[in-house]
Amino acid sequence: MRVITKISDLPDYLGMKVGFVPTMGALHEGHLSLMRAAKANNSLTVASIFVNPLQFLPNEDYGRYPRPIERDLELCEAVGVDIVFNPTADELVGDGLTTVAVEGVTELYEGLARPGHFEGVATIVAKLFMLLRPNVAYFGLKDLQQCLVIRQMVKDLHFPVELAFSPTLREDDGLALSSRNRYLSETHRRAAPKLYEILRHISGQVQANENSDAALTEGKQYLAANGFVVDYLDWVSVPDMRSIREIGESSESALIAAAYLGKTRLIDNILL
Amino acid sequence: MRVITKISDLPDYLGMKVGFVPTMGALHEGHLSLMRAAKANNSLTVASIFVNPLQFLPNEDYGRYPRPIERDLELCEAVGVDIVFNPTADELVGDGLTTVAVEGVTELYEGLARPGHFEGVATIVAKLFMLLRPNVAYFGLKDLQQCLVIRQMVKDLHFPVELAFSPTLREDDGLALSSRNRYLSETHRRAAPKLYEILRHISGQVQANENSDAALTEGKQYLAANGFVVDYLDWVSVPDMRSIREIGESSESALIAAAYLGKTRLIDNILL
Repeated sequence: MRVITKISDLPDYLGMKVGFVPTMGALHEGHLSLMRAAKANNSLTVASIFVNPLQFLPNEDYGRYPRPIERDLELCEAVGVDIVFNPTADELVGDGLTTVAVEGVTELYEGLARPGHFEGVATIVAKLFMLLRPNVAYFGLKDLQQCLVIRQMVKDLHFPVELAFSPTLREDDGLALSSRNRYLSETHRRAAPKLYEILRHISGQVQANENSDAALTEGKQYLAANGFVVDYLDWVSVPDMRSIREIGESSESALIAAAYLGKTRLIDNILL
Repeated sequence: MRVITKISDLPDYLGMKVGFVPTMGALHEGHLSLMRAAKANNSLTVASIFVNPLQFLPNEDYGRYPRPIERDLELCEAVGVDIVFNPTADELVGDGLTTVAVEGVTELYEGLARPGHFEGVATIVAKLFMLLRPNVAYFGLKDLQQCLVIRQMVKDLHFPVELAFSPTLREDDGLALSSRNRYLSETHRRAAPKLYEILRHISGQVQANENSDAALTEGKQYLAANGFVVDYLDWVSVPDMRSIREIGESSESALIAAAYLGKTRLIDNILL
């Protein structure tokens, strides 16, 4: 496995089919499953480890975001990654004068809660796509809205890359794997699976044509009663993320949630 | 020569060295000289003809911008262009949800006078670069600020393209070639060369260390006296376009001007 930190050291890999997994490190089984999928379907597997400052708001956890780089590299090596691109912020952000922005879906939910976040994501993913020239890029559906933003950007700017979105991996108790789970206190860790539990519960209700407004309101109350501070809990169409209330309103939809336990913000979703 | 209007019809030209000249059509000798340079230094010459709606402000001349497509294609053919990409606005703008923006130099002069203009330019040039994958792209220095914006974008987003900027071509009387010159009335056409005349005059003055503030003020008065409504006339550093007043302030600099004759906005510059 080759670890590359400088843009100028990136190799030409003419003729190779490149599978690419962009990450912010602090790797868990969710990332590794994306890398295994890349490995299985391409001739070269490239992963990036880059804690992207542009996608953090000033009040967020950029500084304390976990960076266990040695363990991350061991994990990449173990799953058979060929190249890890691990640039510094200076190297990849550069002058930072050019930004890529996606209108529409970025203004809702995560975009509303975290203004500028998706612009930071889109800008850095555009750079990574340009530098690493993947044939296929792998993303986890836990960040559903991020997947939709990337898909729109790839379509609009005509990036010659295929996108592969993989289902969320979970702990045995249902908690979606996330690098931020390590922030949770023991008490909060015990409460955390209730976020997925309520999404499944509401999923059953709306698919049984029960009153979705009532289901969502009760869901929020249940989360609040269990120590969550709910940012949003909604049922939305996919890919445009309009709030919906009836099965017939969209052929594809998702239940989406973001909520705090203490200072830790968890997000999760279920595709219907 | 092949004329392509659909993105899906664009060919693969593996192994060819591609020279690319993006234009809005209404071709003049300035464009043709860029195409000849592309032809001389590449194995395939691609030109685009696309009146980009994103770079026009609502009150500007998008609707009446000249579109002499048959004559343009004849001219392309005559200089030996291999492929002309001539998409519809729907085809190239698409959903129009993703935009590429360049901070800094875009906020001054042309960017100030035409808010959103450079975002429109950068977004469409990014798409054209992605779709046409040129090795070298050719731009005219008459649009100096545009050249600087493209250069910043290419650097920041790591487009694998070399940029070639060519000197402004002029009529015998000094007027910079521009597709918009055809809008000028006979009287205005006679006055128009005075824009370049005053730039040359001030260029001589500032290089002789005369008072640049006075030179610029007199220049504006001269233009006004000759029927121009001056938008800006300034001396700026290159590439960052800070206003300067002394030779020592920047190793590279330019005198830049934008002014109206009637409804027609002319721009010009001299690199020092």
